[in-house]
Amino acid sequence: MQTRSEETRNHIKTAGIDEFCLKGYDAASVADICGHAGVSKGAFYHHFPSKQALFLSIMQDWLENLDIELFTRREEGENIPQLIQKMGSTMGFVFQAASGQLPMFMEFMVQASRDKEVWDAVIAPYRLYQQKFTDLINAGKEEGSIRQDVEAEETAKVLISLAVGILLQGVVDPGAADWENVTKKGVQMILDGVKRRIE
Amino acid sequence: MQTRSEETRNHIKTAGIDEFCLKGYDAASVADICGHAGVSKGAFYHHFPSKQALFLSIMQDWLENLDIELFTRREEGENIPQLIQKMGSTMGFVFQAASGQLPMFMEFMVQASRDKEVWDAVIAPYRLYQQKFTDLINAGKEEGSIRQDVEAEETAKVLISLAVGILLQGVVDPGAADWENVTKKGVQMILDGVKRRIE
Repeated sequence: MQTRSEETRNHIKTAGIDEFCLKGYDAASVADICGHAGVSKGAFYHHFPSKQALFLSIMQDWLENLDIELFTRREEGENIPQLIQKMGSTMGFVFQAASGQLPMFMEFMVQASRDKEVWDAVIAPYRLYQQKFTDLINAGKEEGSIRQDVEAEETAKVLISLAVGILLQGVVDPGAADWENVTKKGVQMILDGVKRRIE
Repeated sequence: MQTRSEETRNHIKTAGIDEFCLKGYDAASVADICGHAGVSKGAFYHHFPSKQALFLSIMQDWLENLDIELFTRREEGENIPQLIQKMGSTMGFVFQAASGQLPMFMEFMVQASRDKEVWDAVIAPYRLYQQKFTDLINAGKEEGSIRQDVEAEETAKVLISLAVGILLQGVVDPGAADWENVTKKGVQMILDGVKRRIE
């Protein structure tokens, strides 16, 4: 069960997401967020030293959830291409479930491109994902499901780029495609390449 | 040769790009932009009815340039996969040349997700790209360079997603990879898939 303090903290986070999505990071004020959450400024500052601290905390949650969704679901007997294909489906699911929160994803990127502290906070886990995907491709090479001549790091970057591009388009133009299906197909195309490609 | 009026207009646009990149769309004021460009507010409003009009005009230029770079470079005897591969290299070039302006790309997306008028202005050419890439894939099927069982629209969306994702990562973390090379490799992997894939 949540303690009362955790509950308040989560209220503030939810209100923060709503306000940041609606007005953007710069325009959303601590007063707006407090009003939305129904908490006092005192309560806010008890949990978060600043608006930026709240923002970073929301981002941390988002990245941790993504990490859990992506990297802790390997099943017995699944090879690496199968696991990555499944991640593609998961991404689609994450994507749909979080669709209301997706403007936040844009805010993370915009703030990261402007503010060194946000940049550090977003870039460290992002580089960790790059590394984890590189490790996965290498594990696939070791188990023999991925060709030996495939460059693991590049393939990881291509997969992540595809995912990032789909997320961004899904924010801006959700109705233009069945993005879940585009993710699945894109991942499949890349995996078909690394399983069969001859340089 | 540029007329004096065109020159002023271009000065204002360049200053607008700098200010939007530095401060973001919301925080950058018409006064800031005028100061930066060394023009009066009168001159500004002679050329652009509002800050948003300037923003949209910059975006229009950006999209037109991209369109020219991508779609008017087909050479005699080039088949569609070769053309698309070349577009991949062009993207890398566009990307590097425009690297100082790339925070603008983020601003286009953020504003588009918030403002209906910006959204309309960004979404129409974007959907046109989707259509142009779909047409290309279909032309490849017709000329026999791309498999008949390839779904043109999906493949187009995967290619565009890859490009969008690479652009975004290039803004946020330019040093993390040779993004030009990631583009080339990613496009190649997808093309290898559509040339060879059996469903």
